[in-house]
Amino acid sequence: VKTYHLFLLGFGTIGRALSRLLQEKQPLLRDAYDVAFSVTAVVTRRHGVALGLGGLDPVELLRAGEAGGKIGKRMWEPAALANLLKESAADILVEITPTGRMTGEPAITNIRTALQSGAHAVTANKGPVAFAYRELRDLAERVGRRFLFEATVMDGTPVFSLQREALPAARIAGFRAVLNSTTNYLITQMETGMDFEEAVQQAQAVGIAETDPLADVDGWDAAFKVAALANVWMGATLTPQAVDRTGIGGLDPAAVRRARAEGRPYKLVCRAARTPDGIAASVRPEQIPLEDPLAAARGTATVLYLETDTLPGLIIGGTEPSPKTTAYGLLSDLLSIARGEGYPPNS
Amino acid sequence: VKTYHLFLLGFGTIGRALSRLLQEKQPLLRDAYDVAFSVTAVVTRRHGVALGLGGLDPVELLRAGEAGGKIGKRMWEPAALANLLKESAADILVEITPTGRMTGEPAITNIRTALQSGAHAVTANKGPVAFAYRELRDLAERVGRRFLFEATVMDGTPVFSLQREALPAARIAGFRAVLNSTTNYLITQMETGMDFEEAVQQAQAVGIAETDPLADVDGWDAAFKVAALANVWMGATLTPQAVDRTGIGGLDPAAVRRARAEGRPYKLVCRAARTPDGIAASVRPEQIPLEDPLAAARGTATVLYLETDTLPGLIIGGTEPSPKTTAYGLLSDLLSIARGEGYPPNS
Repeated sequence: VKTYHLFLLGFGTIGRALSRLLQEKQPLLRDAYDVAFSVTAVVTRRHGVALGLGGLDPVELLRAGEAGGKIGKRMWEPAALANLLKESAADILVEITPTGRMTGEPAITNIRTALQSGAHAVTANKGPVAFAYRELRDLAERVGRRFLFEATVMDGTPVFSLQREALPAARIAGFRAVLNSTTNYLITQMETGMDFEEAVQQAQAVGIAETDPLADVDGWDAAFKVAALANVWMGATLTPQAVDRTGIGGLDPAAVRRARAEGRPYKLVCRAARTPDGIAASVRPEQIPLEDPLAAARGTATVLYLETDTLPGLIIGGTEPSPKTTAYGLLSDLLSIARGEGYPPNS
Repeated sequence: VKTYHLFLLGFGTIGRALSRLLQEKQPLLRDAYDVAFSVTAVVTRRHGVALGLGGLDPVELLRAGEAGGKIGKRMWEPAALANLLKESAADILVEITPTGRMTGEPAITNIRTALQSGAHAVTANKGPVAFAYRELRDLAERVGRRFLFEATVMDGTPVFSLQREALPAARIAGFRAVLNSTTNYLITQMETGMDFEEAVQQAQAVGIAETDPLADVDGWDAAFKVAALANVWMGATLTPQAVDRTGIGGLDPAAVRRARAEGRPYKLVCRAARTPDGIAASVRPEQIPLEDPLAAARGTATVLYLETDTLPGLIIGGTEPSPKTTAYGLLSDLLSIARGEGYPPNS
């Protein structure tokens, strides 16, 4: 059994879900993949730093994490990351800090530090892939480590790994997608008769919308995701700011209801296409026909329609996103790293 | 550049589409994957056998294949396969004979022979995976070769490779799907007002339905595909005959129209689920709500809704199936074989 030491940078809902998923899958990972993942460092901004070379006790960590107390006595200082990676003998940095709004930092620096320290990096933070994909990909290649980010778009539904592993030698011409669960849920609620404020409050009550829902409502979350996909798949060098972006704040709930009744519902549609001037990307509310594959995304579901030179229309979608599905995106990246290093070993 | 010798067993529309796709992708395969695929044998029942160790000229083959003339002087005899594989120094058998209706033969024997001769086997023929998956998988493992079949279900849309490569450590609980393009097209045409016979004639005229459409209409094609998916993904040992099967022949066109108008359209729904008595699988016309992900499949599109323990609802679908998309499924298998042997080599 090959054991990988994980360094969890962040221990919010995603980190805790990953911790639970690793426990749940431990026997299968050992038997079918010949690998084990041992968390040797957990770092949070508020609750301190916990290190343990023999592997931290996930049950204890979860108890502390969920109670909101300290998980360790030391305080987190970003400048100490390289040393902490060394102290914890980390093989893989798991970057699960919240997505920074407008620069991708400090996650980009964290990942750069990890790669330069000889660790692989996986992340659920959209910032690094939206703002610094090319630099981090090239750095990872140079140092012979991996930089993976399956959990950043569509909450663990395989999109990046689908393209990387299951669409060899295909050229991506463009895509259309519904990528933001919160706005899709809000539109679905407005279709049933709620006004915008009611829908937001209801979404907050069930834990779908953030306390500050603006990053979703204004289309920023979707713009990060479009930039990430276009950068990785189409060779673009977009930032979220370069995406032509209109949120759903200006949608009239009566018009939303009418549109659904007429069979041409609104969706916050993300697009990327090749043009003579480079990659054009947009996020904006659009009415689409019911036959459109994007119409299948109701509530918190997401869906992506991809055009390639070998498959004219490929659809991938996911329903019921949760911290567990995002954690699964991280786990699938961890297993890609192990597989790239020969685990499971050839029989 | 690592060169793989391909043995094409069958040279109908799929074989010719593969030949064209290999030519189209040749520069990319060489530059990005460090591989080349050279066809050293083409065998057809009607048009004879062509062998050429240096690689047959695809342009000439296509001309002969499309003209319907002889491609070689020798006649095909099934018993000669092992010798022909040796004579053509074949690395990979590409089994693209038509799916045999009720036993999976002779494709099963062909693939067994190839594996026992030390060649890998890829196929677009549903028979072997529907009738003999376990035997051929175990044999391939024993002899250290691959048996792959991406093109058998959903015409090149990644389904088997999606699960194998992009859903590591996930357990499949069950699935629902629209897998047969022809019946879905017929239902779509009936929704617009055609009666059953008109729809069949129209589908035959545009090349979607076979001259003998019964394998599709009676649900056999779908039953083969359900058996294949359940066998590979859920450890089932189903044959197509063991799938609880009802075709679309009994559907009343007026009821189909009414169902669509009422927003509960008919689909030929394929299902597999775990039960206390093992895997239950069925193919039958069902009315589904418009919100159902399966409702997104219109015309010749296909769609699959997968439940796993880590992702509660995963959707994969494809539009506009064609010989080229099926050929792409075969190419993706060929590249999986190359990748498994270290191509592209680690940089």
